[in-house]
Amino acid sequence: MSNQETLQREQHKIDWSAVKQEVRVFAPATVANMICGFDILGFAVDYPGDEVCMRKVEVPGVRIIAIHGDEGRLPLDPDKNTVSACVKMLLEHLQIADQIGVEIELTKHMPIGSGLGSSSASTVAGLFAANALLGNPLSKAELMPFCVEGERLACGHGHADNVAPALMGGITLIRGYEPLDMIELPVPDDLVAGIVFPQVDVPTRDARQLIKEKVLLRDAVTQWGNIAGLVAGLYRNDYELISRSMQDVLIEPTRAILIPEFYTMKDIALSCGVLAFGISGSGPSVVAISKGKKAAQEAVDKIQAHLTAHGIESLQFVSSVNVAGPKVINLK
Amino acid sequence: MSNQETLQREQHKIDWSAVKQEVRVFAPATVANMICGFDILGFAVDYPGDEVCMRKVEVPGVRIIAIHGDEGRLPLDPDKNTVSACVKMLLEHLQIADQIGVEIELTKHMPIGSGLGSSSASTVAGLFAANALLGNPLSKAELMPFCVEGERLACGHGHADNVAPALMGGITLIRGYEPLDMIELPVPDDLVAGIVFPQVDVPTRDARQLIKEKVLLRDAVTQWGNIAGLVAGLYRNDYELISRSMQDVLIEPTRAILIPEFYTMKDIALSCGVLAFGISGSGPSVVAISKGKKAAQEAVDKIQAHLTAHGIESLQFVSSVNVAGPKVINLK
Repeated sequence: MSNQETLQREQHKIDWSAVKQEVRVFAPATVANMICGFDILGFAVDYPGDEVCMRKVEVPGVRIIAIHGDEGRLPLDPDKNTVSACVKMLLEHLQIADQIGVEIELTKHMPIGSGLGSSSASTVAGLFAANALLGNPLSKAELMPFCVEGERLACGHGHADNVAPALMGGITLIRGYEPLDMIELPVPDDLVAGIVFPQVDVPTRDARQLIKEKVLLRDAVTQWGNIAGLVAGLYRNDYELISRSMQDVLIEPTRAILIPEFYTMKDIALSCGVLAFGISGSGPSVVAISKGKKAAQEAVDKIQAHLTAHGIESLQFVSSVNVAGPKVINLK
Repeated sequence: MSNQETLQREQHKIDWSAVKQEVRVFAPATVANMICGFDILGFAVDYPGDEVCMRKVEVPGVRIIAIHGDEGRLPLDPDKNTVSACVKMLLEHLQIADQIGVEIELTKHMPIGSGLGSSSASTVAGLFAANALLGNPLSKAELMPFCVEGERLACGHGHADNVAPALMGGITLIRGYEPLDMIELPVPDDLVAGIVFPQVDVPTRDARQLIKEKVLLRDAVTQWGNIAGLVAGLYRNDYELISRSMQDVLIEPTRAILIPEFYTMKDIALSCGVLAFGISGSGPSVVAISKGKKAAQEAVDKIQAHLTAHGIESLQFVSSVNVAGPKVINLK
């Protein structure tokens, strides 16, 4: 065993008397990119989200005993399911994989492939649950590398703009990846997200592949002016600046192609007085950001009515920014 | 005359009793881009800078009577010199071009073509002087469009990352151009810039033409992560974050080619413990950013010694961020 491994073992020594029998955890959906900040910004919402119930059992190992709400789409094989695979990694890191057994029951309260960080919410719920069950040997920030690894398993790349806000809550900036540099940004009190999920399938992988490898420097400058403006707007609590800044000239024009009625939805939202409108993550969910609940609620209601009239089923969620992140529902 | 023109005339009505005889103004050099924020960030320094002395005369019109310190490189023709051309535009906007005459004496205390916003300092000094002479009919922000126009005359494009900090002082963000959206960012107290100008000629136009029209999206994401990190770091007064963020993966690799000994200068600066090192504007000046004066001073001293050993003459300037911007030296 290397010195580093010994150190890690010492640092995170498990207090077996603090280990619990069962924990139930909720982790939130997230809006990656926050419209202008492709791959670097994201925020958490209060609802929807996923729930993990984790029980300590006698036989060592990590097992998935049930998944609810996924319409049979997620694997029960503990090595293929990202929740169990990440929990396994965590137990191995803590060097207790052969000393403890856990059973996981995953309940998805949000659609898969919606652009709302579905896999991130599950992964974060699983890791947060395992950590809570073990008496919290790791801090939230120390759980991050495992969350990123889960995202890599689920989506083929280790982006953190969903897992970071799902784990930390609030609005997070991923400044860089080598090493992971995560900054929590201020959350204006009245910021509300109105989300509509048109029930059409846009897998993250496809939405990524559409995006061109090269972009015009001129457009990149516009985009980073907006990103800088958004960060400044959050610190200044300046809703006007936030509104002017939340514009995506680079990614939206490409991804909007995959989303039915995108520009009409945008027109509807802006006519309701929201601050900004754009794609949530890789879509097809769209998000209207408003000051206070009224404009966001009006926007999503009108957007849903429009989609219904065009024969497209949809779901809506209206929520403040969730500053708490994942939470323990009960622990015994 | 349109309603809008009438309105402008009313808004900025000149109080002729407040008009002065002579004013002398200093406007500061600026470091555009602030290393990572190409075309959107810039800051002003205390020194060097340019001086404009402006006198009211009987005969209407704008005249340049002398330019000192330019080695005969700048035009005296009032339509070709950006300082007089901008002042003329201002007087026309105020609809008093036929009612007032001014003589301008420009003293350049900084090198031309150095990457320190030489033309911006002169333009800002001229416009600030004219406004002061007239009893300040316009606010600083209202002077900005004339400054941008001056930059367009001088460099062929209306970028504002030099004129904005030269006029407003401090650190400025240009979020966007349509319309011009200028945000003043917080200035950490101990932020010091150590500037070295290697006396080789790099015209802004050439330095721009080297830059490719298209960039990798991957690199753009790295860049805007750093830009967002820098803005957050300024608000948090977090020197570590500022340091991690001030990295340019997009423009520096290209522009560094035009700057002799660039990477050796960078190594020298970083070994002195500065927070960051990069190109000032389009170069060839380079800038070391430090917390407190010591590291910046040590860096520029060692860089100058290195350049001297390689037969390259240079100038150095060490300064805090100048939060005041242009200043009236005397007014009578």
